[in-house]
Amino acid sequence: MINVTIWNEFLHEKLHEEVTRVYPEGIHIALQKGLASDKLNIRTATLEEAEHGLTEEVLQQTDVLVWWGHMGHDQVADHIVDRVHARVMEGMGLIVLHSAHFSKIFKKLMGTGCDLKWREANEKERIWVVNPGHPIASGIPEYINLEHEEMYGEHFDIPAPDELIFLSWFQGGEVFRSGCTFYRGQGKIFYFRPGHETFPTYYNEHILKVIDNGIHWAKPTITATPVRGNHAPLEIL
Amino acid sequence: MINVTIWNEFLHEKLHEEVTRVYPEGIHIALQKGLASDKLNIRTATLEEAEHGLTEEVLQQTDVLVWWGHMGHDQVADHIVDRVHARVMEGMGLIVLHSAHFSKIFKKLMGTGCDLKWREANEKERIWVVNPGHPIASGIPEYINLEHEEMYGEHFDIPAPDELIFLSWFQGGEVFRSGCTFYRGQGKIFYFRPGHETFPTYYNEHILKVIDNGIHWAKPTITATPVRGNHAPLEIL
Amino acid sequence: MINVTIWNEFLHEKLHEEVTRVYPEGIHIALQKGLASDKLNIRTATLEEAEHGLTEEVLQQTDVLVWWGHMGHDQVADHIVDRVHARVMEGMGLIVLHSAHFSKIFKKLMGTGCDLKWREANEKERIWVVNPGHPIASGIPEYINLEHEEMYGEHFDIPAPDELIFLSWFQGGEVFRSGCTFYRGQGKIFYFRPGHETFPTYYNEHILKVIDNGIHWAKPTITATPVRGNHAPLEIL
Amino acid sequence: MINVTIWNEFLHEKLHEEVTRVYPEGIHIALQKGLASDKLNIRTATLEEAEHGLTEEVLQQTDVLVWWGHMGHDQVADHIVDRVHARVMEGMGLIVLHSAHFSKIFKKLMGTGCDLKWREANEKERIWVVNPGHPIASGIPEYINLEHEEMYGEHFDIPAPDELIFLSWFQGGEVFRSGCTFYRGQGKIFYFRPGHETFPTYYNEHILKVIDNGIHWAKPTITATPVRGNHAPLEIL
Repeated sequence: MINVTIWNEFLHEKLHEEVTRVYPEGIHIALQKGLASDKLNIRTATLEEAEHGLTEEVLQQTDVLVWWGHMGHDQVADHIVDRVHARVMEGMGLIVLHSAHFSKIFKKLMGTGCDLKWREANEKERIWVVNPGHPIASGIPEYINLEHEEMYGEHFDIPAPDELIFLSWFQGGEVFRSGCTFYRGQGKIFYFRPGHETFPTYYNEHILKVIDNGIHWAKPTITATPVRGNHAPLEIL
Repeated sequence: MINVTIWNEFLHEKLHEEVTRVYPEGIHIALQKGLASDKLNIRTATLEEAEHGLTEEVLQQTDVLVWWGHMGHDQVADHIVDRVHARVMEGMGLIVLHSAHFSKIFKKLMGTGCDLKWREANEKERIWVVNPGHPIASGIPEYINLEHEEMYGEHFDIPAPDELIFLSWFQGGEVFRSGCTFYRGQGKIFYFRPGHETFPTYYNEHILKVIDNGIHWAKPTITATPVRGNHAPLEIL
Repeated sequence: MINVTIWNEFLHEKLHEEVTRVYPEGIHIALQKGLASDKLNIRTATLEEAEHGLTEEVLQQTDVLVWWGHMGHDQVADHIVDRVHARVMEGMGLIVLHSAHFSKIFKKLMGTGCDLKWREANEKERIWVVNPGHPIASGIPEYINLEHEEMYGEHFDIPAPDELIFLSWFQGGEVFRSGCTFYRGQGKIFYFRPGHETFPTYYNEHILKVIDNGIHWAKPTITATPVRGNHAPLEIL
Repeated sequence: MINVTIWNEFLHEKLHEEVTRVYPEGIHIALQKGLASDKLNIRTATLEEAEHGLTEEVLQQTDVLVWWGHMGHDQVADHIVDRVHARVMEGMGLIVLHSAHFSKIFKKLMGTGCDLKWREANEKERIWVVNPGHPIASGIPEYINLEHEEMYGEHFDIPAPDELIFLSWFQGGEVFRSGCTFYRGQGKIFYFRPGHETFPTYYNEHILKVIDNGIHWAKPTITATPVRGNHAPLEIL
C-alpha cells in the first residue's frame, strides 16, 4: 500500500466557471477518484488548509506527493517548500503535474529557471513513448492523443532528465519533453506535462495510467541512510 | 511471479578443485538456492545442454535471464547469442554477472570492447552505494565489504551506464563502476561486478539481495510493441 | 586542422534522376564543398572504391569520419566495418547522417536494432534545440525549418543518447530525437537525422553548421591509452 | 581568448599558518599563475572586495568563473549568488573546486544537499579517468596520484552528473565521483574534487591541466537566446 497525498492549489476551480464545469470538486478530487485502487491510500491537501495541508505529520506519512499548482505558486509558504524538499531528500516521491513546472518546489529541486513556451489555442497534442521499457510507460500505447490541450514548447529550462519517457507533438509546430524523471537525494521525481485546468485531461484513462505508474515508480526505496560528514579516523584496510 | 532463468557456463566448477570446493553444484545452483522466494520461479541452464538450454521456448518463458560465464565465452553459439539479443530487444531483462562482462551477448548489447583491468590477489573490495534512491539499492547498507575478491579496475570499456548504482574500491588502488543499468530496446540490463569463481561471494546475503533487486527491476514492462517502418499516408492533423 | 573523411555510398545519385538533379556530384561532394573551411582538411571515400576507400592508412589519418548510406548498407564489407569500429574505440569521431541509422557500423556501435518509423510525403520538419548550451548547437536559432523532408518518427530503437541536442517535429504528427551524441570507447559519435537524398537539405546553411559543429565536437581527445588486462602484482598503497 | 575570473574566499590563507605556507598569495593567485596561457585572460576576485568582486560588469565580462570557498560560504551575499546563478543560466561556465561543493551557488544549481563524507588524515588519493574520450580528460594519464589529500567519500548528495569523468580512490577505503559535469540553463558546470587548502595540490601539473581543460570545455556556446513565455497565435503549419 502506497500512501499518496495529492496537493492542489484549488483556486481556478472556485474562480473560473469554465474550470468549475470540468473539475467541479477540484482537480485533486478528480485525481483521487481516477487513481483509486487497492494499492494506493490517497488523501488530498490544498493551499487554503493550515500549513497548506502539508504538516510534518502528513509528509512523514506520505510516500508519494502529487503536486498541481498554477496561479497560486507565490502563495505557498517558503518553509513548507523547504519541508517538502527535505522529505524528497529523505526519499519521498514527487509527481509534478503540468503548470507545477513553475512551482517553488520544482524550481528548487531543479536549480534552473524551469520556464517554457506556451499557448492556449485548444490544439491537438500527441504524447509519444520514447522509452518503451520504462515502467512508467507500462500499459500505454505508442502514443496518447489529446484533442485539446494547452501547448508547452521547448526550450524547457530543466536539467537533462535522468530518463526521458515521453515527448509531445503539438499541432502548431512545437515539441516538448513531457515525461521526465529525476533522482534527487534519496527521492524520485516525475514531471508529467498534460493537464491544463480547462480540459478534461485528468479523466483520460491513459493519462491516469501514466500517473499511477509514476506513483509506483516513485515510491521510496528503503536503503541505509547515507552517512555524511566527518568520518574519522582512517581505517587500516 | 517472475520467471527467471539462471545461465551458467558451468566449466570451472568441474575442472578446478578450488572452485568445486566453493560451488560444488555450480554457481547456477548456488544462485538458484540463494535467490529462492515465492516471487521468483527459477530454472537453470548451462552451456553443455542442447542449445545451451536456451531454446526459443525457454526464452519466451523467461522474464529475466541471469548470465555467468568466463572461460567458455567462445563456445556459446552465435545464433543463440542472436536469439538472446532479440529477446532483450522484446523486453526480457538481463542480469550480467562478473566475468560475463566479456560474454558475446554483453559485448553485442554494449557495442564496445567491454575490457577492463584485473588482478587475482585475494584483496579486499568495498562496494559503495552511489544512488541510494534506486530500487536496486533497496535494503543495502552504505557499502558491502567483501574480504577477498578478484580486482576489476577502470577503464571499463562500456557506454556510460544509464544509471550508476554501485562503485567498488579495491585495496590495491583501483576503482570500478560495479553496478550499472542499461536500457536497450524494450529490455533492461543490469551489470553487477562481484562473483569470482574461487570466492564464496554468491553466498553473501547483501550480494544476493542486490541480484534479487536487479531481477525485480529488470522484469519486462508491458507496453505496446513499438511501430516502426513505413508509416503512410500522412495524416491530416 | 581536423582531418575529415566523408564517406558516401554514392548509389542513389547515379541511379535515380531525381537525386542526380539535387546532388549531381554526389552527397559527399556537396558536403565537402559546403563544409570547406581552413579548419578542416576534407577528403571523400565511396563504396565502389577499393576497400570502400577506407584503408587502414586512410582511417589512421582520419580524425572524424562522416557517414551517409542507405540502399547499399549490405554491400559494406564486414571487415571494413570492424576496422571503422576499432578506430572509433581508439578515438576517431563519427558523424552518422540520416539513413545511416541503419548502417552496419551504427548498429554495431549501438547494440540495438536502430529501426524507426518513416514516411516519404514531402512534409515539413522543424528541428528544435533542446540543449542550447551544447557546442553542437552553437550558432543555431531556436529551430531550423525544413520545407520538405522525409519523416522519421519514434520509437527510434537506440540507447538513450548521452546528450540529446535536437528534437524534430513533423507535420504529420510525429516527433524524433534528431541530434544525439554517444561516447563509445575513446570515440565520440553524433547522429544527425536530416538529409533525405531527394531534398536539398545539405545545402541549408544551418544544417551545414550543425555538421561542422559536430565535427569539431567529435575530434579525438588525446588521452593516455587505457590500460586493461592483467595488472599485477598488488601495489602496497 | 577566454575571459576567466577566479574567485577565492581568501580566508584560510590569512588565518592559518599552515595554509599561508602553501599558498602565501592565496589559492586564487596560485591558480592564476598556474593556469596562465595565451588563451586565457584571467582576473581574480575575493570575498572581501566590494560585491565580493563580482559586480554585474565583471560577470558580464566573464566567460568562465572558477570558485573556491570553504569557511566563508555563509558570508557570500544572497543577491550575489542570484547574480552568478543568472549568468550561468545565460551561458557563463562555472568551475567548482573542492570544498565549494557546499557553496551557496553550487547548492542552488544542484537543488540537493551536496553533503559528503570527509576526513583529514593526509591520506593518498588516486584519481582515475573513467571517460577517456572527454575533452576534460585530454592529456591526463590513466590516473593522477596525490600523496596527501583530504578524503571526500560517497554518498555525495548531487544529481547524477551529465558526464562522469573522474573517480577517486582513497587509502582509507572510500571512493568519490571527483569530476562531474552538469548542463544547467545555457551554462556548463564542472565540479572537480581535489584541492584542500593545506596541500600543494594546485601546483600539480595534471590538476592544473584538468582545470584548464574544464575552462575550455565550459566556455559559453553562442546560441540564440531561448524563446519562452506566451507564444501566440497558432501558426498554420
